[in-house]
Amino acid sequence: MADWSAQQYLLFEEERARPARDLINGFALENVRDAVDLGCGPGNSTALVLSRYPNATVTGVDLSPDMLEKARRRLPDVTFIESGIEAWEPRSPLDLIFSNAAFQWVPSHVDVLVGVMHHLRSDGALAVQMPDNLDEPSHRLMAETAALGPWAEALRDVEGGRETIRPAQDYYSALKRHASRVDVWRTVYNVPLAGHGALVEWFKGSALRPYLGRLNEVEQKAFLDAYQRRIAQTYPVLPTGDILLAFPRLFVVAKRA
Amino acid sequence: MADWSAQQYLLFEEERARPARDLINGFALENVRDAVDLGCGPGNSTALVLSRYPNATVTGVDLSPDMLEKARRRLPDVTFIESGIEAWEPRSPLDLIFSNAAFQWVPSHVDVLVGVMHHLRSDGALAVQMPDNLDEPSHRLMAETAALGPWAEALRDVEGGRETIRPAQDYYSALKRHASRVDVWRTVYNVPLAGHGALVEWFKGSALRPYLGRLNEVEQKAFLDAYQRRIAQTYPVLPTGDILLAFPRLFVVAKRA
Repeated sequence: MADWSAQQYLLFEEERARPARDLINGFALENVRDAVDLGCGPGNSTALVLSRYPNATVTGVDLSPDMLEKARRRLPDVTFIESGIEAWEPRSPLDLIFSNAAFQWVPSHVDVLVGVMHHLRSDGALAVQMPDNLDEPSHRLMAETAALGPWAEALRDVEGGRETIRPAQDYYSALKRHASRVDVWRTVYNVPLAGHGALVEWFKGSALRPYLGRLNEVEQKAFLDAYQRRIAQTYPVLPTGDILLAFPRLFVVAKRA
Repeated sequence: MADWSAQQYLLFEEERARPARDLINGFALENVRDAVDLGCGPGNSTALVLSRYPNATVTGVDLSPDMLEKARRRLPDVTFIESGIEAWEPRSPLDLIFSNAAFQWVPSHVDVLVGVMHHLRSDGALAVQMPDNLDEPSHRLMAETAALGPWAEALRDVEGGRETIRPAQDYYSALKRHASRVDVWRTVYNVPLAGHGALVEWFKGSALRPYLGRLNEVEQKAFLDAYQRRIAQTYPVLPTGDILLAFPRLFVVAKRA
């Protein structure tokens, strides 16, 4: 059982790492001298930037001291800075501003994206990926579970923190003024999961956390049960015994003029 | 002007090459000894397979003698076979079956995909990409233009040849029985084009061809004018002066058990 769990965990890790890999494969830069990873978390994406551009000086930026501690332990030669993305300013212009699954937490994120373009050298690139799943059943059913249970009052404004991802043309129009080229694409991944319980597990460490954080242990269990019942009514079990979780993500790459 | 056109052409080439590159970056195989490129066209995708797996023996398969002649001129060391995809059978099992933008022309393409899985060695992979844009305004407006003009009778059954792309779970369910792992993802690319005329140009060499092939020169011009008027009403000109053409594509990678 322990082995199986470890394997399951590694499988999730690979699935979760895929969008960052697709982002870094989605553009090509020559001669990257310095790069920043905005919202670097525990440093997984920072390690990816380093492995793709081994000669670059890479800085990681995150708001969470916990995450930064993990990142520093993982990559002792990298400088990590405790800062929100909105407040961050580099000392000098950079060749690459990378951000994997972080800008959805930045208020007025389109304006902030335009702002960071000015921290790029000529021919440098901004490369950003954001989950775009607030309209997916997985997320609508979280909000529905929150609104329709005895915990409704406690969970009223949980969703408030996250930005709505806009249509591709909004990013294109805003960034093209400052860029020689803007690529915007949206990919829907399909994550195979071994049943409805596995889907709940998948989101326990991410989208469900703000809800669970406001509930006691008994409420948490009741909330997760109610959520899983809704999931079971919505996601069909395929003939193979799996279910597929559709997970859309938006990618933006802008090359400075 | 000549230079600008050449540049424009190269830009289109790069945009058109992107999905094939994303397909080949979407999986990793070790030790590919032999591979086939089904529906290889003029050999662009075959060259991509060769450059990614330089030690592999790669065979190209296509129905069109014209395309195969171009492919042979481009890649004189590769064996190219004139055959439809449905009729193709390799002499011995392969490590990689690759197909870029071809299976949408294969009748009952899901069944044929399942069939070709049996031509893979253990741990080999099937990797397929198909345009999934029949429901996009660009294509609906072609069909509308065909149905509502004086050419309606002549163009009645033009769309018949192309398969409808199915939901991700149909590919997953059909292939998973024969695979250790199936990845299905759908990407919507956004191609920036310099106005509505450029959108018409983009499709002249592909989706518009079956329509134009049945019309005389005068009718062709009238058809393209009518199509462009509809395009202009549907695709907004952005503040940057461009329009964005959304181009969805479905990707399937199945690894043989």
